[in-house]
Amino acid sequence: MKLTDLPTPSLVLDRGILLHNLATMARALARHGVPLRPHMKTAKSIDVARLALVGQPGGITVSTLAEAEYFSSHGIADILYAVGITPQKLDQVAKLNQSGAAIIVLTDDPDTASAIAAHPAPPRTLIEVDTGEGRGGVGPHDAALLDIAARLGPNLAGVMTHAGHSYAGRSIADMARIAEAERHGAVRAAERLREAGHTVPIVSMGSSPTALHAASLVGITEVRAGVYMFGDLFQAEIGTHAIEDIAMTVLTSVIGRRPGKLLVDAGGMALSKDRSTEATTHDYGFGLTLDIAGKPTLGNAIVRKAYQEHGVIELDPQYPVNLPVGAKLRIAPNHTCMTAAAHDRYYVTDGDDEVVAIWPRVNGW
Amino acid sequence: MKLTDLPTPSLVLDRGILLHNLATMARALARHGVPLRPHMKTAKSIDVARLALVGQPGGITVSTLAEAEYFSSHGIADILYAVGITPQKLDQVAKLNQSGAAIIVLTDDPDTASAIAAHPAPPRTLIEVDTGEGRGGVGPHDAALLDIAARLGPNLAGVMTHAGHSYAGRSIADMARIAEAERHGAVRAAERLREAGHTVPIVSMGSSPTALHAASLVGITEVRAGVYMFGDLFQAEIGTHAIEDIAMTVLTSVIGRRPGKLLVDAGGMALSKDRSTEATTHDYGFGLTLDIAGKPTLGNAIVRKAYQEHGVIELDPQYPVNLPVGAKLRIAPNHTCMTAAAHDRYYVTDGDDEVVAIWPRVNGW
Repeated sequence: MKLTDLPTPSLVLDRGILLHNLATMARALARHGVPLRPHMKTAKSIDVARLALVGQPGGITVSTLAEAEYFSSHGIADILYAVGITPQKLDQVAKLNQSGAAIIVLTDDPDTASAIAAHPAPPRTLIEVDTGEGRGGVGPHDAALLDIAARLGPNLAGVMTHAGHSYAGRSIADMARIAEAERHGAVRAAERLREAGHTVPIVSMGSSPTALHAASLVGITEVRAGVYMFGDLFQAEIGTHAIEDIAMTVLTSVIGRRPGKLLVDAGGMALSKDRSTEATTHDYGFGLTLDIAGKPTLGNAIVRKAYQEHGVIELDPQYPVNLPVGAKLRIAPNHTCMTAAAHDRYYVTDGDDEVVAIWPRVNGW
Repeated sequence: MKLTDLPTPSLVLDRGILLHNLATMARALARHGVPLRPHMKTAKSIDVARLALVGQPGGITVSTLAEAEYFSSHGIADILYAVGITPQKLDQVAKLNQSGAAIIVLTDDPDTASAIAAHPAPPRTLIEVDTGEGRGGVGPHDAALLDIAARLGPNLAGVMTHAGHSYAGRSIADMARIAEAERHGAVRAAERLREAGHTVPIVSMGSSPTALHAASLVGITEVRAGVYMFGDLFQAEIGTHAIEDIAMTVLTSVIGRRPGKLLVDAGGMALSKDRSTEATTHDYGFGLTLDIAGKPTLGNAIVRKAYQEHGVIELDPQYPVNLPVGAKLRIAPNHTCMTAAAHDRYYVTDGDDEVVAIWPRVNGW
């Protein structure tokens, strides 16, 4: 099957670029001798997970229990569910763990820690530590850290932090600085727990930018990252991913022509309504238009509007094209996690026009 | 099963409100004696379609060929695929039509019209007319209208227009004015075709706002609308849907607590990144927080941030709440079509806490 034969809209994944991105991250972490626990929230695919795990211990990170169930059913046991657990979700975690998974959960809440300890099949649990993002987590110096640990008792498996505010960085120096604060906070929290007599085997940190650009990972036992596998325009704008290394694009068909514009069948559903590049120096609208080979031969042709199933591409006057209805293009996404979410599979290429595999995704919850 | 037993995030559909919204639209169109061809792009559910079709001829509108296939497999034959067709998609349409569907397609492109006429199993085709939206379609007075009709030959089934720019209106008067331009343009296009000797059985117009607020539908043979079934905060802001008549909400769990804020497990995936109320007088962020009963007892508690699986609710200081991790809330969406898209089913209630049915959705393409 050829790219030109595919239905549209659909996801195209360039395996060569994916492998290049995986190698870049593996090299970055090998400098520190720290293993990777790849975050599968972006790819949501066992085929991608297997490639991302080459040379790594084998554990992964997930963002939903649907992912946990899916990856567990494909033989991956060591799974960190990196979204704060609720007492109500513990039964489902226990059920998966009883059928072979080894799901580790996350909390920053004393009452939830007590609920975990009181559960008949309590999972191993990390305490979420806030090292500057201000989303979830207790501060490394908070009294709550020791309270939660005491309540968890033997279920405590360590600490984890996520420097999601690295996305507000705009340079390698920014990322390195945020990575050091992330590392320092996580290690400090682990030290406090150890001083209080707890065993803290896992000290987990990570985001793609800080994983790539950390100057030191001393005291860290594992790093989590996900977006680096595919990259996107936002990651390119913040300087952590080359634009030509974006591995995943949306294949689309021209469905209408207007002077200076093309109407395509990739709208808000196929691209997502994510507008993250709006906050950067180059606003790509809802995505950047590439040719069917994935090359930027259309200049700055961005998807300016995204209706439900219609996208409106504003052509770059310096790169005139005259494409008929039915012609195919590819769109590089603002935010690859969000864009992939509407699609149930990847059509995989090795950089040419041949589709060499179809890899399913696990969406939903 | 109770609402409190449901996994989160998930979609809750209030059947009573849905039926109320369906009745409101049916009444609005009955004044004109014009039938409805409900647009299933929002609900994507056969169960909702059956309710929306009560008292109507039975035809529907869809936004993807996946919807066409799904609804056809559930016994609905008369289906308008209301996104410009490409020559490459004609084989799939023909295949569905050969297995019992009667899919009508849409074009505004002369070359595509020729491709339709040359296809061994050409579908009935509407010419898309632009009555002010500026997205797809030829102008009612354009020479291309007659050119396309001539190329379609006996496959011409009529004209269709979509006044999507009604979403830029902010009052009933705006909607009525845009509806009249929509009606006039569609009828004018049909008249030109008839003057040229064509038979024009279908003159189709519609958007939820113009369908509800048209003063006249003279010359129109059918109206399309979809969002009206569920409504959303954006429709409430533009004055076409009461906020208490929003039928679909996202059930979510509290997963973290901060002063003045709640962290919930409905983020950008479960709510979508749609920010359409940003352009209105009340910016709801990524949604408005309701209590588990769907009531606005939390005041102006909006979802201020949406990460992939985390939402951050900023509580209204005038409506203090103290909810534990695991407590459930509901979020009214900015844009119901986009929010529903990440979910594979509705959990249906009759307004209380009992789940009376589960209705599947058809996503993707």
